[in-house]
Amino acid sequence: MSVLYDRVALIGLGLIAGSMSLAMKRAGLAGEIVGYARSAETREVAREIGLCDRIEDTAADAVRGADLVVLCVPVGAMNAVAAEIGPALKSGATVSDVGSVKRAVIEAVAPHIPEGVHFIPAHPLAGTEHSGPRSGFAELFDERWCLIVPVDGADEDAVERVETLWREMGSNTDRMDADHHDLVLAVTSHAPHLIAYTMVGVADDLGRVTGSEVIKYSAAGFRDFTRIAASDPTMWRDVFLNNKDATLEILGRFTEELFALQRAIRTGDGEHLHDYFTRTRAIRRGIIEARQDTDAPDFGRGKRV
Amino acid sequence: MSVLYDRVALIGLGLIAGSMSLAMKRAGLAGEIVGYARSAETREVAREIGLCDRIEDTAADAVRGADLVVLCVPVGAMNAVAAEIGPALKSGATVSDVGSVKRAVIEAVAPHIPEGVHFIPAHPLAGTEHSGPRSGFAELFDERWCLIVPVDGADEDAVERVETLWREMGSNTDRMDADHHDLVLAVTSHAPHLIAYTMVGVADDLGRVTGSEVIKYSAAGFRDFTRIAASDPTMWRDVFLNNKDATLEILGRFTEELFALQRAIRTGDGEHLHDYFTRTRAIRRGIIEARQDTDAPDFGRGKRV
Repeated sequence: MSVLYDRVALIGLGLIAGSMSLAMKRAGLAGEIVGYARSAETREVAREIGLCDRIEDTAADAVRGADLVVLCVPVGAMNAVAAEIGPALKSGATVSDVGSVKRAVIEAVAPHIPEGVHFIPAHPLAGTEHSGPRSGFAELFDERWCLIVPVDGADEDAVERVETLWREMGSNTDRMDADHHDLVLAVTSHAPHLIAYTMVGVADDLGRVTGSEVIKYSAAGFRDFTRIAASDPTMWRDVFLNNKDATLEILGRFTEELFALQRAIRTGDGEHLHDYFTRTRAIRRGIIEARQDTDAPDFGRGKRV
Repeated sequence: MSVLYDRVALIGLGLIAGSMSLAMKRAGLAGEIVGYARSAETREVAREIGLCDRIEDTAADAVRGADLVVLCVPVGAMNAVAAEIGPALKSGATVSDVGSVKRAVIEAVAPHIPEGVHFIPAHPLAGTEHSGPRSGFAELFDERWCLIVPVDGADEDAVERVETLWREMGSNTDRMDADHHDLVLAVTSHAPHLIAYTMVGVADDLGRVTGSEVIKYSAAGFRDFTRIAASDPTMWRDVFLNNKDATLEILGRFTEELFALQRAIRTGDGEHLHDYFTRTRAIRRGIIEARQDTDAPDFGRGKRV
């Protein structure tokens, strides 16, 4: 692949930005990659491990002259960062982001984008429970989906270039409007995360079962929840506060369904339970066929952990 | 290790029995392993792949002359199986089981155990989302915990022999009373499974998000839930029907906590959310330090699935 953007600026240097830098290098997509993070410690680590070609000490310096700027900060920090970089953006540049919600990010960022700069929101559906500048790896996006959420009147060439970037970093891409994106993600990501956080919090908080028992005996199912519930607290706080309506709607449906299953348990309705559990098996099968997860038992954790 | 039991009978030939047979062979713990499954097809597969040394067509024939009989059937089938084998048990033999609930299994099985036969309930905290006679593997129990739940007046030598068996198959062992076991498992296993089943069912059932979208975009978190929700429907129906009180108690606590987090989202209480999400991270750390899960990102699923 030839160079897609002569200079790329990554604002925020966590798991996603780090993986983007490595994936762009792998495919030779950027002439120069410049990075910025708010924390001096993060910038120091990024310099030490050579995460980008150059690390700047302000966001404005990082975006100066950049052809593509990608905002990789928690959703709640997007507004302040956009305000800071707006005046320094080069005419004809593209600004994108990787936020997990899209309506709120568009409202936070779009007002700060000057005339002559393209704003093309995006969201790669990839991540791990690890965070920080050391957690990135070039393969994170391989075979995952990246959703591109163009705003009204977006420049088609600029949109296609962002799509090409993500494809060359290993992803599949789809386009979606912001509201549908936020609903789909409430189902596939935001509600599951809140539920996992809740269950892990409950286990931690029970008087009659000790924390040591919960930890020792977690292999019976609970440990799967703890992986998700170990995700970055700031990122997830911002997701819930900025995708409030869709998340609360899905949680409402979830509670309704949970109550129906609780009633089936209480009344001994084994047929209802068995039917329900049979149906959910088919979804797992679909995900494996779509190559979005491994069929190896226990995710292929292997016998030694 | 020398032979612990001259003849072992495994009743039910799914994931756990298959893995036990392979783990016992690996360590040379049994002189002969005899198997029985209710389904003729399962018996046929077991014969074909050489899962046991001998497969019998009735449970009574399988247990005749056995020194150890392990009931590896769904919890709801324990009573009928125990009634069937009771008269055929050898004096001095030990009967054990691998059921996920213990109070109900003891009530179902104990009345059928004749004088002079030991009954030592047990529960290996290990499993995968796969089931059936082909799903077993010798390493399933390595470094996992097996809980031994002796009944009142249990013979100490017989208990220790069952503990030794599990240790030699790779497990750690602990002793626990039946009621505490059922509460601990409600937290670490039963409630998480019901919650995962519920969330996957909700995603399948939403009109405005298609099943294809749920599957394609599952890597954002949802796919972890689908693994658990792909577990054996009969086994899990029986678990919930037979550990009703503890499961409903934990689900009640879960709902209470979920409502508190929903309220924090609705009112925009970011501090409550951030504090909660920070606390749950520590539990994940404990599980990794206790070697009950891998620290590899995404369970080490790897870049190609």
